[in-house]
Amino acid sequence: MSAIQSERPAYFSKYPSIRFERDDDGVLVLSFHKDGGPLTFTAQEHEAFVDAFYDVSRDRDNKIVILTGAGGDFMPGIDFNSFGDVSDPDVWSKVHDEGTQILENIANIRVPVIWALEGKAHVHAEYGLLANLIVAGEGATFNDLPHFAGGIIPGDGVFTLWSYFVGPGRAQAMLLDPKPMSAREANALGVVAEVVPDGRALERAREIARTYLTRTEVTRRNTRIHFIQPIKERIVREVGYGLALEGASAAALVKSFRAK
Amino acid sequence: MSAIQSERPAYFSKYPSIRFERDDDGVLVLSFHKDGGPLTFTAQEHEAFVDAFYDVSRDRDNKIVILTGAGGDFMPGIDFNSFGDVSDPDVWSKVHDEGTQILENIANIRVPVIWALEGKAHVHAEYGLLANLIVAGEGATFNDLPHFAGGIIPGDGVFTLWSYFVGPGRAQAMLLDPKPMSAREANALGVVAEVVPDGRALERAREIARTYLTRTEVTRRNTRIHFIQPIKERIVREVGYGLALEGASAAALVKSFRAK
Amino acid sequence: MSAIQSERPAYFSKYPSIRFERDDDGVLVLSFHKDGGPLTFTAQEHEAFVDAFYDVSRDRDNKIVILTGAGGDFMPGIDFNSFGDVSDPDVWSKVHDEGTQILENIANIRVPVIWALEGKAHVHAEYGLLANLIVAGEGATFNDLPHFAGGIIPGDGVFTLWSYFVGPGRAQAMLLDPKPMSAREANALGVVAEVVPDGRALERAREIARTYLTRTEVTRRNTRIHFIQPIKERIVREVGYGLALEGASAAALVKSFRAK
Amino acid sequence: MSAIQSERPAYFSKYPSIRFERDDDGVLVLSFHKDGGPLTFTAQEHEAFVDAFYDVSRDRDNKIVILTGAGGDFMPGIDFNSFGDVSDPDVWSKVHDEGTQILENIANIRVPVIWALEGKAHVHAEYGLLANLIVAGEGATFNDLPHFAGGIIPGDGVFTLWSYFVGPGRAQAMLLDPKPMSAREANALGVVAEVVPDGRALERAREIARTYLTRTEVTRRNTRIHFIQPIKERIVREVGYGLALEGASAAALVKSFRAK
Amino acid sequence: MSAIQSERPAYFSKYPSIRFERDDDGVLVLSFHKDGGPLTFTAQEHEAFVDAFYDVSRDRDNKIVILTGAGGDFMPGIDFNSFGDVSDPDVWSKVHDEGTQILENIANIRVPVIWALEGKAHVHAEYGLLANLIVAGEGATFNDLPHFAGGIIPGDGVFTLWSYFVGPGRAQAMLLDPKPMSAREANALGVVAEVVPDGRALERAREIARTYLTRTEVTRRNTRIHFIQPIKERIVREVGYGLALEGASAAALVKSFRAK
Amino acid sequence: MSAIQSERPAYFSKYPSIRFERDDDGVLVLSFHKDGGPLTFTAQEHEAFVDAFYDVSRDRDNKIVILTGAGGDFMPGIDFNSFGDVSDPDVWSKVHDEGTQILENIANIRVPVIWALEGKAHVHAEYGLLANLIVAGEGATFNDLPHFAGGIIPGDGVFTLWSYFVGPGRAQAMLLDPKPMSAREANALGVVAEVVPDGRALERAREIARTYLTRTEVTRRNTRIHFIQPIKERIVREVGYGLALEGASAAALVKSFRAK
Repeated sequence: MSAIQSERPAYFSKYPSIRFERDDDGVLVLSFHKDGGPLTFTAQEHEAFVDAFYDVSRDRDNKIVILTGAGGDFMPGIDFNSFGDVSDPDVWSKVHDEGTQILENIANIRVPVIWALEGKAHVHAEYGLLANLIVAGEGATFNDLPHFAGGIIPGDGVFTLWSYFVGPGRAQAMLLDPKPMSAREANALGVVAEVVPDGRALERAREIARTYLTRTEVTRRNTRIHFIQPIKERIVREVGYGLALEGASAAALVKSFRAK
Repeated sequence: MSAIQSERPAYFSKYPSIRFERDDDGVLVLSFHKDGGPLTFTAQEHEAFVDAFYDVSRDRDNKIVILTGAGGDFMPGIDFNSFGDVSDPDVWSKVHDEGTQILENIANIRVPVIWALEGKAHVHAEYGLLANLIVAGEGATFNDLPHFAGGIIPGDGVFTLWSYFVGPGRAQAMLLDPKPMSAREANALGVVAEVVPDGRALERAREIARTYLTRTEVTRRNTRIHFIQPIKERIVREVGYGLALEGASAAALVKSFRAK
Repeated sequence: MSAIQSERPAYFSKYPSIRFERDDDGVLVLSFHKDGGPLTFTAQEHEAFVDAFYDVSRDRDNKIVILTGAGGDFMPGIDFNSFGDVSDPDVWSKVHDEGTQILENIANIRVPVIWALEGKAHVHAEYGLLANLIVAGEGATFNDLPHFAGGIIPGDGVFTLWSYFVGPGRAQAMLLDPKPMSAREANALGVVAEVVPDGRALERAREIARTYLTRTEVTRRNTRIHFIQPIKERIVREVGYGLALEGASAAALVKSFRAK
Repeated sequence: MSAIQSERPAYFSKYPSIRFERDDDGVLVLSFHKDGGPLTFTAQEHEAFVDAFYDVSRDRDNKIVILTGAGGDFMPGIDFNSFGDVSDPDVWSKVHDEGTQILENIANIRVPVIWALEGKAHVHAEYGLLANLIVAGEGATFNDLPHFAGGIIPGDGVFTLWSYFVGPGRAQAMLLDPKPMSAREANALGVVAEVVPDGRALERAREIARTYLTRTEVTRRNTRIHFIQPIKERIVREVGYGLALEGASAAALVKSFRAK
Repeated sequence: MSAIQSERPAYFSKYPSIRFERDDDGVLVLSFHKDGGPLTFTAQEHEAFVDAFYDVSRDRDNKIVILTGAGGDFMPGIDFNSFGDVSDPDVWSKVHDEGTQILENIANIRVPVIWALEGKAHVHAEYGLLANLIVAGEGATFNDLPHFAGGIIPGDGVFTLWSYFVGPGRAQAMLLDPKPMSAREANALGVVAEVVPDGRALERAREIARTYLTRTEVTRRNTRIHFIQPIKERIVREVGYGLALEGASAAALVKSFRAK
Repeated sequence: MSAIQSERPAYFSKYPSIRFERDDDGVLVLSFHKDGGPLTFTAQEHEAFVDAFYDVSRDRDNKIVILTGAGGDFMPGIDFNSFGDVSDPDVWSKVHDEGTQILENIANIRVPVIWALEGKAHVHAEYGLLANLIVAGEGATFNDLPHFAGGIIPGDGVFTLWSYFVGPGRAQAMLLDPKPMSAREANALGVVAEVVPDGRALERAREIARTYLTRTEVTRRNTRIHFIQPIKERIVREVGYGLALEGASAAALVKSFRAK
């Protein structure tokens, strides 16, 4: 309907660790990166991504969103120290509020979302699981580094999303003993829709995006709204509480360090 | 308990595209057909099936229900034009009301339901997914022709049911890029309980029905009620909204046609 | 944090069919047994297990719980007659109340629970499915003897739990035609996390428990609380009604016997 | 849109205790009666009303529905004996199924419903509480005769509806100690929208109905659908279980009679 | 904790119809206005308020939010024409998306919200009902002009919120026959916490805000989060569907105009 | 059915601050006290009441439960210091677990519960709101001392219960600015069923209990189960999260004290 505005919206330049590219059809590629290479997740991203996904959701010139990484990885690592003293209730209050809001904001992107996954999705894989379709390079792997492995609970939605996709048995097992799951395994479990050669995920995602573009905008938007509704309800019910429990767990971890 | 009444109830003759057969044990075979061959779904069926499933649900002489097709297919196609101008809000109001009601009425059949599937279930497979057990001929295939392939959203419960059975990853992938899923694939995914040679699904369903008949009527009814409760709650929460979103999508599609 | 009390709590000696063993780290092994051999489930256990699981849940000296059987089986059989006249509404009222309470009490064990399964889990497998991780001997099998096979509905949570773990298609099929499912099948379906040689499940569960002990107590407790929340909500919504429907079904079964 | 068909639909003559009158605008007055006087509710109505409300809901020529009684009362009494031996599980199975279905069918009347209440609503007041607006004669009273007063639980939705309208405190108090509540009290509590002189409720309801007719049919239907959605969800979650609990309670009552 | 930044954030100047004022304690007064006088709500506000409330929610320098109007009224009127052709599915898609998002964004303001109400709240009173406390001038009135009075359904959350606050009986009655409700009536119903002389609501709200400031920031934030959780869940379940139904109703209204 | 055992169960002597009295009909009076006078709530009661209510719930010789206080008050005060360092995550973990469990255990008392209220219910009034009927002396008052007044959030269920009984408007207002509410006000709001002269509440509760005893035990139990189901679902969804948020708030309060 409306032509895509030729100028770049202001938010395209607002977030240091996100690169935005949008073609004339409104297919937005949102790439996480650090200086063009793989992103190490920090507290800065935890704050910034809340608004970034909101900005994406509110811009009706985005017709389809492709989520991806840079430098061959989606999100390979996390810098815990950047979060500061997570046993400080004021610090965790911010984590709690951002953590619930970020998943709601991704869920509220009301156009089809495709996850073009390359390499390691070892941190916040649940962001990608809120896509409607996942295309993965064959070397891609899923894991959950930040939680049980690091001594805190996987309460930020990562359990909610994995349980939704692969059932509670597998979700609990993988989160209690985090090990990389390959793209092929994830494909066999119905999580990944297509496995492509490494380095081809984005290209394939673009192809798929083009097929969606043949539908009307309302069809694309409402399909997303309908598909996301059940998990959006679960996010609202489960993630805030999960993050509050995770905060107490983080405080206990800090206490145990200090006791040593 | 009560002997099955020998005379045929009036509704057995009420619906041109449904053939009813009931044996002395109360096993009702409900076959969709068009002139004895495979049924092409039209607006007439959309209206008629609401009441047909209600009539079946209300007749306590039905002890077990077997759902099947005719001419070697369950439901191979749909005639969109029969629905009229789906961008007319009065037309879609009827579609919305019938569409929510039909799934509730199938869910409210309070005896075990077996789907004896042969051939193509390419339209409204969700009707069959409300069965408690699926027996499929080996050539049977599942697909979803009427929605994303046709330019509108799969909001009538087809996503709700597939997501419930195979998880959201597979459900989204198959509805966004509809391709036939074979009976064997569906069996591997736990959707189809048994694959039988083509043409034998009904016979096998009858055999299974006979094993159920050894339980008391209350056991059969209450088992169904218990099994259906979680998905009935989801239908009530998700399908009305889904159909309303689908209606807007249909209006947008008509608008796009007219703009050409 | 707190040292485990050296003396055994009183409830360790309270239940004839449960053996409790707790090591110095607070890993509690809870073994069902009858005179040291496999347990045949009776009405006495139905009552006793309610309180036993509550006692376990309330004792903060339990840091991790391992659930297992004795004599090479988890729970191979059930003695229906022990329940008395299940068509008597006063009798079933007790069954209903205990049946809902027992699952809530297991769900409220707020430390990680591991199911070390050997042999037959042919009765009340849903107790074990409330664990966070399942380790099974390779000869272990799952089944559901007490319900549809015996003429009553599987309304006590066994459907709710199986449906949660393997989806509604498989859950309905297995409960309507109960047959043993092997540990390897369950592993392939994501239910069993690890298959070990027969007789090694408990040992392996202990090893896993030790890895959990490296996390703080709050992390362990809150992980359990977060993981169990979605199924706890379903238990509260579905199991009471299921048991009420099962009670009517049991009364109908007794009526049918008397009519013969 | 469509002119109201001049001939009376078949269901207008199908139910001995319901009188149907429809004017040219599609305002349907549905009056409960016995031989033209006040209706004493029996098992025959319990079965018939299920289908009657379904027929009303399915007839798109009904534009607005007014529910009322006859002979100056809505429903003053109930004949328990007509239900037969309610301790027989087959008898109660029917009560359970009908009881859940009847409330769902009223909820699914997708046009505005007005309750024109005169006299005693002492049985199944919850039917009327599913209206969107209540006009009551000043001598009208609400009560609940069939349940706690008669020795069984108010599980058929009467608690669900009263709790929804006046809060759980008042609902529990009135159902545990049933006494007539006057129209003026109900008006002060927000239940009754208007109190009119005795004998004028129907006339006033017709006036209100005429104001609704100035809106489009889709507006009228969708307003009803939106207003009813929250309570429809509660009905689906609460009423089946409530009726199952009521059935056990009825069986216990019969047992206590027989023990005397 | 953090001192309130002295400079005004950019969003304070972003929205023509909102005036922001924040004192040194972080009490933000958010006033709707048009050129300093009472606001007539238009499509521009429908879009702008989505982001405005989001900006407010994301700015942790806001410690308490007071919502009010200007020129002696909260929101006295609406300009329907500004929304354009609401029967166009693309137009309504935007209304639907914004309408759901705006209520979620208000709900996600994670600090106490006080509504200082003066004059007419005749449009979008539900925005104010998402406050935690309402102080009203004695001449204030509540009403709902935009929906049933205008021929469309009150599906944007106004029913959900009124039903939550005054029960479904009053909510349905007032929305089906919109008439001003006075501050004193609303106070008697528990909606308005305090009635003050006209023109004093803001001053009183500031006093109350100061009492909240004596609590810690986490206490203030988490109290809001806890209080809003139940209605946030209902908003997510009910409002999207309500707006979709309202869209169909709007299309039908336009159709009826064109038919004249 | 079963005669009440003449000997007193062991739990009658287990809890220093609870006096149990049971008459021959099984009417249990559970009185909170400290040395026979009004109870000041401490951490010891927080732990003990969990098990006390569980013991009550599990003893089928309790036919009706009357909850009351001693010395003319229900619960007039609280000793915060007894809880220790509530900013210690291990301390709060225990508070969280007990706090959620205590409300579930009261909800699971499956016989009618009557609250015979005298004097001050200024701490944990929500325990009493889980009764089915409240009889109050005319000098009785409700309040909430431990939360917002003390600087932490009312997250332990007190909001959930008050909101359920008097709606969210009044609940938020009273919890944000705690002031005593009189028995007569509570009666006018439908919370208190009967106001009696001071000192007569227990006597009146016993009279009411006797009327309940004329119903069968199953009727009494199942009525309670049905009435409590909706709020039990809300407790499970809301209270754990509320307590986790309250814990963070308590930690922030301690931090603010230490900063002074």
